[in-house]
Amino acid sequence: MLTDIQISRAASLQRISVIAERLGLEEAAVEPYGHYKAKIDLKAAGLDGAEPRGRLILVTAINPTPAGEGKTTTSVGLADALNRIGHKTVLALREPSLGPCFGTKGGATGGGYAQVGPMEDINLHFTGDFHAITSAHNLLAAMIDNHIHWGNALDIDVRRVVWRRVLDINDRALRQIVQSTGGVGNGFPRESGFDITVASEVMAILCLARDLDDLEERLGRIVIGYTRQRQPVTASDLKAAGAMAVLLAQAIKPNLVQTLEGNPALLHGGPFANIAHGCNSVIATRAALALGDFVVTEAGFGADLGAEKFFDIKCRQAGLAPAAAVIVATVRALKMNGGIAKAELGHEDVEAVRCGSVNLIRHIENVRQFGVPVVVAINHFHSDSEAEIAVLREVAEAQGCEAHLCRHWAEGGAGAESLAHAVARIAAGGEAQFKPLYDDALPLIDKIETVAKRIYRAEGVSATPAVLAQLQRWEEAGYGHLPVCMAKTQYSFSADPTLLGAPTGHVLPVREVRLSAGAGFVVAICGEIMTMPGLPRIPAAETIRLDAQGEIEGLF
Amino acid sequence: MLTDIQISRAASLQRISVIAERLGLEEAAVEPYGHYKAKIDLKAAGLDGAEPRGRLILVTAINPTPAGEGKTTTSVGLADALNRIGHKTVLALREPSLGPCFGTKGGATGGGYAQVGPMEDINLHFTGDFHAITSAHNLLAAMIDNHIHWGNALDIDVRRVVWRRVLDINDRALRQIVQSTGGVGNGFPRESGFDITVASEVMAILCLARDLDDLEERLGRIVIGYTRQRQPVTASDLKAAGAMAVLLAQAIKPNLVQTLEGNPALLHGGPFANIAHGCNSVIATRAALALGDFVVTEAGFGADLGAEKFFDIKCRQAGLAPAAAVIVATVRALKMNGGIAKAELGHEDVEAVRCGSVNLIRHIENVRQFGVPVVVAINHFHSDSEAEIAVLREVAEAQGCEAHLCRHWAEGGAGAESLAHAVARIAAGGEAQFKPLYDDALPLIDKIETVAKRIYRAEGVSATPAVLAQLQRWEEAGYGHLPVCMAKTQYSFSADPTLLGAPTGHVLPVREVRLSAGAGFVVAICGEIMTMPGLPRIPAAETIRLDAQGEIEGLF
Repeated sequence: MLTDIQISRAASLQRISVIAERLGLEEAAVEPYGHYKAKIDLKAAGLDGAEPRGRLILVTAINPTPAGEGKTTTSVGLADALNRIGHKTVLALREPSLGPCFGTKGGATGGGYAQVGPMEDINLHFTGDFHAITSAHNLLAAMIDNHIHWGNALDIDVRRVVWRRVLDINDRALRQIVQSTGGVGNGFPRESGFDITVASEVMAILCLARDLDDLEERLGRIVIGYTRQRQPVTASDLKAAGAMAVLLAQAIKPNLVQTLEGNPALLHGGPFANIAHGCNSVIATRAALALGDFVVTEAGFGADLGAEKFFDIKCRQAGLAPAAAVIVATVRALKMNGGIAKAELGHEDVEAVRCGSVNLIRHIENVRQFGVPVVVAINHFHSDSEAEIAVLREVAEAQGCEAHLCRHWAEGGAGAESLAHAVARIAAGGEAQFKPLYDDALPLIDKIETVAKRIYRAEGVSATPAVLAQLQRWEEAGYGHLPVCMAKTQYSFSADPTLLGAPTGHVLPVREVRLSAGAGFVVAICGEIMTMPGLPRIPAAETIRLDAQGEIEGLF
Repeated sequence: MLTDIQISRAASLQRISVIAERLGLEEAAVEPYGHYKAKIDLKAAGLDGAEPRGRLILVTAINPTPAGEGKTTTSVGLADALNRIGHKTVLALREPSLGPCFGTKGGATGGGYAQVGPMEDINLHFTGDFHAITSAHNLLAAMIDNHIHWGNALDIDVRRVVWRRVLDINDRALRQIVQSTGGVGNGFPRESGFDITVASEVMAILCLARDLDDLEERLGRIVIGYTRQRQPVTASDLKAAGAMAVLLAQAIKPNLVQTLEGNPALLHGGPFANIAHGCNSVIATRAALALGDFVVTEAGFGADLGAEKFFDIKCRQAGLAPAAAVIVATVRALKMNGGIAKAELGHEDVEAVRCGSVNLIRHIENVRQFGVPVVVAINHFHSDSEAEIAVLREVAEAQGCEAHLCRHWAEGGAGAESLAHAVARIAAGGEAQFKPLYDDALPLIDKIETVAKRIYRAEGVSATPAVLAQLQRWEEAGYGHLPVCMAKTQYSFSADPTLLGAPTGHVLPVREVRLSAGAGFVVAICGEIMTMPGLPRIPAAETIRLDAQGEIEGLF
């Protein structure tokens, strides 16, 4: 059996100019980065602010398990299949982060015969977007300390600077630092630290901005800290937003690549799915909707986190109305949700599938709460038995939901045609009546409670007095209308990663809240969230190298 | 009078594919980055390891003053003029650093009608080379702390880790930090800090490597610190070199852009001219020599630092033999060397020119010590009087040196034709007999003394016992054959920036020495050298923004 990288290298990609031309883009609107990647200049393409015309399909999943669900792979397979059956379809996906590639092997561009390429480029520097975000983020950090150094006219409280720095790397040594040591010339010493670039609010902003003007306005709204009187200080107060926007002027243009079957894919932005909303850029999604009849996009983690944020943050802010959702499930992952250990997944266990399918059922119910019709994609693994698949299909159908077995990993788009027919029919059927879960006007703590009760099925929320007081201060400062961005474990509906299946009776503990005023949400942190990963004992970096032919070894 | 940015925007650049085609490059060897920049794949171009065939011309200068000498501008003007008079000429220049653009206005792409473009792109992210260097450098840093965290099998002395981190930004708060605070999970706390990316040894390595294999070998030789037994620990010991090379595989390809007159320019690499050697990449210079009949290149600062390092480090390591050198001088800068204050430079002062020209004379003598013939370029300013210019010409001619008045700033290549004729004649005349200043076998301290006495005309060198002991330890460890890289003020032949003209009788104090084993030199630090700049009280960033037309304001 060929590996992902072997399949990727064996595929012959078409020139990106060919893909762009087929999309109807004029040559002047396509800025090539090498022969197989390009940025689209939306203004030159006449797409700046163009109204979406295509139908938007969200690919989401059950709660992830170590068994793997294949959400990106299914997104790619579905898009290829839709194109195969005659629908002009564009993918809109996140671009992966460089840093983690040097920790653990593996990229984020799909798998098997359902991949986007060029794989190595996309997983490494790609078109430089993340580097631009790193630069813009750290420029703001430098301007904060510079302002304090030269007199601190804004009276920033150095103990209350919340803006950290970022690097696209796994480096635990930078999680917490004391900066500005060494004397007067280096500024005022204080504690701070670095997050990985995907955790930057600038990343979330880039992914939620409608255009360059909106980007600059959002950057200006970033709250970098507080004065001694606890008043928020913004990037705009520091006159930083213009320069940050200049650094991001190229990064904001969506990136065009292709699937191994030569279908167009916009890969653009990649915010964390815990402290941010975990979706590709609004700009890429809207551009895709202007270019294609169907757009297949994806949200981070399981539907409890990813789909909820996609609906309540991204669609709400961008005015998008999804036409259908695909929930990816696997026999293996449902067996794990049914209590089977990873090592035992190779044996047939129909009862475990049935038992674990409570997880799938709840996700189906949840997505429907947003007024979006659901199709289940059963992502096939060769260890699945006919009986197990039959149970899964039966469970979905009992919910009034079509379930389609997909073999895109092994067969490419051809393996997902029945899913594609169902999705196209349902998305075009006009069944969707999208609405977010809660109103803007609801108090922040009530928004958190709404998600906890209606999506996580918690009994309630526990929050410390400090958290409640902080939420109230933000409401008084004018941030009460923002949606909430839930940061909790991806492995369970609850905040306890070991509670699989469909737990009830739990209470959601809100440990901390953070304001992302530029991105436009309030983050509720429920449990430990790591924003700067470390490298493992033997990092992948130790075996990554160029071989004699100049090909990259050890990355995947 | 138009500003540089107005001239740049009014010029209409040709598609980079046109420039590449005119150079004889096949389309498959040219990787476009947008429509006006490209990377050259030397292997695909059949240029990997190609023997230089063109003649190499170094542009250097007298000691810089706040009056400005226009070294880059003269390089561009000379290349345009050589092309005008029928010689196929390629520029090989450094690419500028992004960070400083947000401190003080101004780019590094020439001026007036002697510029390379696209100016904004080149001064901002360009093709991502510096970001790749930042990534590779910081990956090594993360691997060091990760190795220590997981057991420190190499017995690295955490007090003797010399590898810092880098960012392409002016941020004084990062000069000195305490890292890894916050508990067990974050590693072992220690002092460290960040330099600006151009100060990274990885930058120097990229600029001295012959090809990708040599790059990886050099990366492996980087000494990151010492064991408790004071034995050097290398990047290769940490198994980091392969992954670093993968991160640099795209950055190592030279960047093709053009002058405003449509002539080819390779902008590639940009190491510091103090703690590193301050020249564009060997790869770009060699590629230019394979593509052009003449190659115009540049070295940092004045000839005492820049030209000496160009000859003793770059040419020595790369086996390059320059055919001629141009020393750029201005009436204004010589008047400052003659004791006139900046505010008084507008008044004619023939005696001050004569008095200050001792600086020029010494640089002429010095460059000739390397066996390279010299031409003086008088870079014209409109405040220059005929009498002042006549003195400058007379001084040069008394040294047996042609001096040519150049008006490329105002007139483009047409203004530097007489210089071009002289340079072409002398470079083609076979007069040059290049040899470095000292032998590889000389002890390190003697190499420092040779440069101090023969180039700076110092009476001698003062070095602390610690410095002498360190040099001896490196000689014992096998680094004694390396050339030395002098880090001193650019404003004077001495280590005292206020000693203008041609000082004698001074002693060169060597405060500290550093080993750049991968780049292949030992740095001798004479005076205070800043490797992480700070932002000024009112940074340029505060006024940089995109205007209503999407053009960048405030950057230049």
